[in-house]
Amino acid sequence: MPQVDFWYEFASTYSYPAAMRIGELAARYGVEVAWRPFLLGPLFAEQGWRTSPFNLYAAKGRYMWRDLERICAALALPFRRPEPFPQNSLLAARIALALEGPDRSAFSRAVFRAEFAQGRPIGEPATLAALLDAIGLESQDVLERAQDPANKERLKAETARAMSLGLPGAPCVVTADGEIFWGNDRLEDALEWAGRATAPRDA
Amino acid sequence: MPQVDFWYEFASTYSYPAAMRIGELAARYGVEVAWRPFLLGPLFAEQGWRTSPFNLYAAKGRYMWRDLERICAALALPFRRPEPFPQNSLLAARIALALEGPDRSAFSRAVFRAEFAQGRPIGEPATLAALLDAIGLESQDVLERAQDPANKERLKAETARAMSLGLPGAPCVVTADGEIFWGNDRLEDALEWAGRATAPRDA
Repeated sequence: MPQVDFWYEFASTYSYPAAMRIGELAARYGVEVAWRPFLLGPLFAEQGWRTSPFNLYAAKGRYMWRDLERICAALALPFRRPEPFPQNSLLAARIALALEGPDRSAFSRAVFRAEFAQGRPIGEPATLAALLDAIGLESQDVLERAQDPANKERLKAETARAMSLGLPGAPCVVTADGEIFWGNDRLEDALEWAGRATAPRDA
Repeated sequence: MPQVDFWYEFASTYSYPAAMRIGELAARYGVEVAWRPFLLGPLFAEQGWRTSPFNLYAAKGRYMWRDLERICAALALPFRRPEPFPQNSLLAARIALALEGPDRSAFSRAVFRAEFAQGRPIGEPATLAALLDAIGLESQDVLERAQDPANKERLKAETARAMSLGLPGAPCVVTADGEIFWGNDRLEDALEWAGRATAPRDA
């Protein structure tokens, strides 16, 4: 089965609809998804940005909020603008990375839902502990593993990997043959590409 | 018939596929398109950018060129990267604005084709005169009208209008009820919205 990497950031607005729909969509395309949380902060810092470009560039920001509202309405996803934006996503990313497989994707969807559907503060340990408990994980244990120095280093390495791949933002899907597809609106293209690239040539 | 405004800029990369496909697409959706050329330069200047953000932000630029290549391949549109990028689009925009109706859209498609399919210098009057002649217009006469002070002012006013609408870039489709759809990848959404918004409520 072809595999793709799904790079996402918990503070990223378009990562929300992408995270909520990539599971079902990939199953339909027969593609396996590796969930790879990372941090946009260092990518933005390299451009000289100290906050989201949606805050720095007013017309872009206004457009994005309305666009996201329309996208969520079309997908029947509840939507509420996080205050403040962007939320601090560091601990959530560390926790996601400390989990594996279905635990990681279930936790990640729970974080996005809390942040963009319910307006809850995802930077706070209490919010994240409650989300872990709700999906049946031992929150104290997971939080300890998340804050372990080795796990912190792993998140730094993942973020460095995202930068060395040249990801322009989040979310991105990267196929096995190295193609980058940026944005919620490129998920279908990415999954189709992944299926095509690995199809037998003489089928 | 519902109508939309199609705002485009001749130097804008994603305006190329959008301009090449909006005519046929809009006909399929039963929507009328008003072609509105404008200049991105003043919008960029307001953000503090002196050139295209695709030149300023390397990862974004690399991604865009590959993305555009894939989009053109999927649409069977020839593609060649303009050198230098961006091209000077001032005279082309003035000419487009001096034309009306089908002359404007035919000339605009010819400019995009010359620039992005053939790599011709669209900033040069000779290139543009040849394109006008090829679609059966009197190039000398049109060039004179394009450089008329009133037409120059009209382009400034159109660009000011784009800014006051809050367009975040090009291409954009704006519907009669004021929704903005940014990007070649939003054309279908925009045309569907335009059709829906003006459909009889009790149909």
